[in-house]
Amino acid sequence: MKNVIIIGGMAAGCKTAARLSRLCPDYQITLIEKSPFISFSSCGLPLYASGEINDLSELNKTPYGAVRDKKYFSQVKGVKVLTETEVNEINADKKELTCRSIQNGDVFKLNYDCLVIATGSETIKPGFPFPASPLVSSFHSPADVKYFRQSAQKGEIEKAVIIGGGFIGCEMLEALSSLWGIETVLIESKASLLSSVLDSEISGYVENEIPAGKIQLMLSTTVKKIEINSIGAPVVYLDNGKEIITDFVFYCLGVKPDAGLAKASGAACGMYGGILVDEQMRTSLPDVWAAGDCVEIKNLVTGRYDYFSFGSLSNRMGRVAADSIAGLSYGGNNISFNGSAGSISLKLFDNIICAAGLTEARAGRLGYETGSVIGCWYDRPDYYPEAKNIFGKLVYEKRTLKLLGLQLSGEGEVTRYADVFSELLSQNKNVEDLMNLEHGYTPAHSSPLSPLNYLGYMAVNQETDGVKNCSPAMLSSFNGSLIDVREPVEVEAATVDLPALSSGVRIIQVPLSQLRLRLNELDLNKPAMCVCERGTRAYEAARLLMNKGFKNVSYLGGGLLLCNKINKFSGFMEKSYER
Amino acid sequence: MKNVIIIGGMAAGCKTAARLSRLCPDYQITLIEKSPFISFSSCGLPLYASGEINDLSELNKTPYGAVRDKKYFSQVKGVKVLTETEVNEINADKKELTCRSIQNGDVFKLNYDCLVIATGSETIKPGFPFPASPLVSSFHSPADVKYFRQSAQKGEIEKAVIIGGGFIGCEMLEALSSLWGIETVLIESKASLLSSVLDSEISGYVENEIPAGKIQLMLSTTVKKIEINSIGAPVVYLDNGKEIITDFVFYCLGVKPDAGLAKASGAACGMYGGILVDEQMRTSLPDVWAAGDCVEIKNLVTGRYDYFSFGSLSNRMGRVAADSIAGLSYGGNNISFNGSAGSISLKLFDNIICAAGLTEARAGRLGYETGSVIGCWYDRPDYYPEAKNIFGKLVYEKRTLKLLGLQLSGEGEVTRYADVFSELLSQNKNVEDLMNLEHGYTPAHSSPLSPLNYLGYMAVNQETDGVKNCSPAMLSSFNGSLIDVREPVEVEAATVDLPALSSGVRIIQVPLSQLRLRLNELDLNKPAMCVCERGTRAYEAARLLMNKGFKNVSYLGGGLLLCNKINKFSGFMEKSYER
Repeated sequence: MKNVIIIGGMAAGCKTAARLSRLCPDYQITLIEKSPFISFSSCGLPLYASGEINDLSELNKTPYGAVRDKKYFSQVKGVKVLTETEVNEINADKKELTCRSIQNGDVFKLNYDCLVIATGSETIKPGFPFPASPLVSSFHSPADVKYFRQSAQKGEIEKAVIIGGGFIGCEMLEALSSLWGIETVLIESKASLLSSVLDSEISGYVENEIPAGKIQLMLSTTVKKIEINSIGAPVVYLDNGKEIITDFVFYCLGVKPDAGLAKASGAACGMYGGILVDEQMRTSLPDVWAAGDCVEIKNLVTGRYDYFSFGSLSNRMGRVAADSIAGLSYGGNNISFNGSAGSISLKLFDNIICAAGLTEARAGRLGYETGSVIGCWYDRPDYYPEAKNIFGKLVYEKRTLKLLGLQLSGEGEVTRYADVFSELLSQNKNVEDLMNLEHGYTPAHSSPLSPLNYLGYMAVNQETDGVKNCSPAMLSSFNGSLIDVREPVEVEAATVDLPALSSGVRIIQVPLSQLRLRLNELDLNKPAMCVCERGTRAYEAARLLMNKGFKNVSYLGGGLLLCNKINKFSGFMEKSYER
Repeated sequence: MKNVIIIGGMAAGCKTAARLSRLCPDYQITLIEKSPFISFSSCGLPLYASGEINDLSELNKTPYGAVRDKKYFSQVKGVKVLTETEVNEINADKKELTCRSIQNGDVFKLNYDCLVIATGSETIKPGFPFPASPLVSSFHSPADVKYFRQSAQKGEIEKAVIIGGGFIGCEMLEALSSLWGIETVLIESKASLLSSVLDSEISGYVENEIPAGKIQLMLSTTVKKIEINSIGAPVVYLDNGKEIITDFVFYCLGVKPDAGLAKASGAACGMYGGILVDEQMRTSLPDVWAAGDCVEIKNLVTGRYDYFSFGSLSNRMGRVAADSIAGLSYGGNNISFNGSAGSISLKLFDNIICAAGLTEARAGRLGYETGSVIGCWYDRPDYYPEAKNIFGKLVYEKRTLKLLGLQLSGEGEVTRYADVFSELLSQNKNVEDLMNLEHGYTPAHSSPLSPLNYLGYMAVNQETDGVKNCSPAMLSSFNGSLIDVREPVEVEAATVDLPALSSGVRIIQVPLSQLRLRLNELDLNKPAMCVCERGTRAYEAARLLMNKGFKNVSYLGGGLLLCNKINKFSGFMEKSYER
């Protein structure tokens, strides 16, 4: 018999409680939560905001309709729950908590044998001045969203501003504009959306795919302050001098670990402010575990502590914490939570976005010398009537060819490739391993070779044989001959155009089918970049030129198609654009 | 300079030729193909048959519209092509081929330095007598499909019979019934569809999901003979005495390696009749490689030679054959084709089916002592408005917990899980590794825990803690107490029903929320099986009963929902059924 207390009643805390109660039915388990709710699926909040879910209570019901409340946890799980109760202090020496009832202010002490801290995350507050008003809100708790939803439903919001272009900012952009028809401005201080998971080539595509009309994207744009004007409307003042009068502001600047209590009690915390845990979710304090959004875990790519705030990981961490407290082992091994490769997926309008590992930008900041390749494929064989485009980027370490990161986006299914990639990252695999990857192939679901096979081939071709894949981001600084190997009929049809190039570039049209015969038209000593619509022929052409003695040859990764998708609103090379 | 000849101009042969020409531009490469076409995507034939693709030529065009013919291969790839040319003999000592032009009958000899055999597969002919008639056709070559397509288009086919319920049989079932509105009978000698990749629980679900109406499934049914009757219509005579008069018959009995030429020349072949190759695609003959559907490769689960006929593998094998001939290596290692975990995916009406590895039935035949677990999940969080059901089965080796196979089906996306699983199979992972799997989670695409996480948990719970997962296939022989832990309101609504049970079974209704209080109503010494709608509560109930001292407890995997889906047409326990 042990007395286990769990602080925090969301994903990680509830999973720990339920699992532990199943494993150790004689343990006394108490769950303490400061809000009135427990086991609330906050990942579903955007669906409530958008109106796709009608009632907040949907987010804490079981599939068979039972509300996951105090009574449910007591009857079904055998767990005692205290809601609207704060823990103000952890005394790790005495194994004692100081608690306070939020409803009546009563302060009381509780003792534990084992403690689990699952206090989750808190929203990052803006650094600029902003008023305390329900019209200027974070997007974190049910309370945050409720006011917006009611106002939207009453038609009180015609124009809204979202500050922050991360996951939640992008999800809300779609919810506000598509589902409520609200004219929406998204302001992001960085030069691109989703910059924590996408490099500029793929985010450039994603930004371009956001439908014009009711949406204005302001990248590389910072806010000076927000005020409420004389008629009660929020006004967003930008550092560039502009002002936006609006009906509602959501700031979605991300979250950080809510680890203040743990830190005050002496638990070791990391550089992101999260509680440091080992693979059994143990903190530095004796008999104290932690799980979920309040901890830092190992990044499986870098091997260093990192911060991820994903509901999927919280669930898995909670289970491992319970297994660890119960002393479970399989075949003599402790049950472990190894960390995360940072695998994400997101739906944004008609596109699916997924990624795993590091962006090239972040890898560079962490000191890796990186290589990368960029490509474009159909999600199914090109003859398939509904085949869609997919664009992707692979990042690897140049010296070792170790995989570092993957980014994919397109209207077709891409998540399957990121899932496999994430497993490869956790196994420290390299680019060559992509060539041997198998996938379930049928024309309805995929091409015979997957984007991962192709990215592996491209990277190996680049590193072993020197067939250089050029990023569209590098195109504007290219100087040499641009060899357009498309057929004349394609060039005339102009479904994709040549991008703007520096003045020194000589454009030469030689279809791939004539290249073998017209090599004499080309200058062997000048840098040459081959381009075509999708990149495949350009690669073949580059190989051919290298075989014929050309020294400095590359091909445009992702083809003119990706280039055009990024340049469509002429924003790619600029630091900021509006649309 | 080497003189390389490739026999066979489909996926593997063309890939070898194109890649080798890029790697070794000074090699003389000749491709010999007996049909008039090369580089034809036969995986797209069902789309031509169904009418989704209008012109057969779509299947050998590049994405930019160029026809992949002789001229294309010569101009673009630098490869010489001989079509309508047969190779009648390989003299491996003299390195000499005897060839024959099909058009004019000329016989001539060709010498090679390196030879690649990529002769593909041939269709398996029925063992019963059948007439030589265009109305009784295999489904393998463009010619096979052309006659059907023309007749269907003219409205000449009202009723068709498909013999064989494998991949092609199932694809054609949908094409004929859904797209042409043809009344279709599918005859399969085995007790279930797709039995090479699905066990009876999952195929039972798949069969049930085939829409009623224009389709009749005849399982465990064998054909005696086919004849053409006096008015010119095919008649299918069954061994059970029935006759089916029809307008058209497709026999889809699978394919086997077309390796006769290789065998006659002394190349070692395996038990499936395919050419045996090593990881560089080398045959037993000096300087002779082989790739594609004509070879046997290593099954990554069993470690033994096996036969797979997948276009995806052919492409990858062709590339490795070229790399091997070119003498390429990366970091001192030969480029290798390791084998296959047998990963497949298929669309059948509204369902997606995917699998990897071995079925439990095949694993048993191969001598493995297997364990398995079956489950049912939503593809997305249950609160998600469009959440769909997924059903799945995991097969593993009982002694080592090594993963052996996965089968998933449902209306939601499942291919991503089979892809990852296939990679785990190739790494010899076990059920515990499923618990640590990461996936890109967002409510639009998945639940916080993936089916693979759940299957891993279920298997570990079963093997380590003895919480038994019972297959619906075992339900009819169960004897003991069936404890229905659903809430009374669910039982009354009867969205799912209790299945037929043996007469000795006592059914006890105790909702999970009351189970802790009503344990005294249950008999501790009788075998108990817990059931609920989807299996989750039944698992919790089983744990609870075990914790309270019950010795022989199990829960129904996949819940009553899967059970009902299989039993809906009362066909599950029977060997054969019609609908």
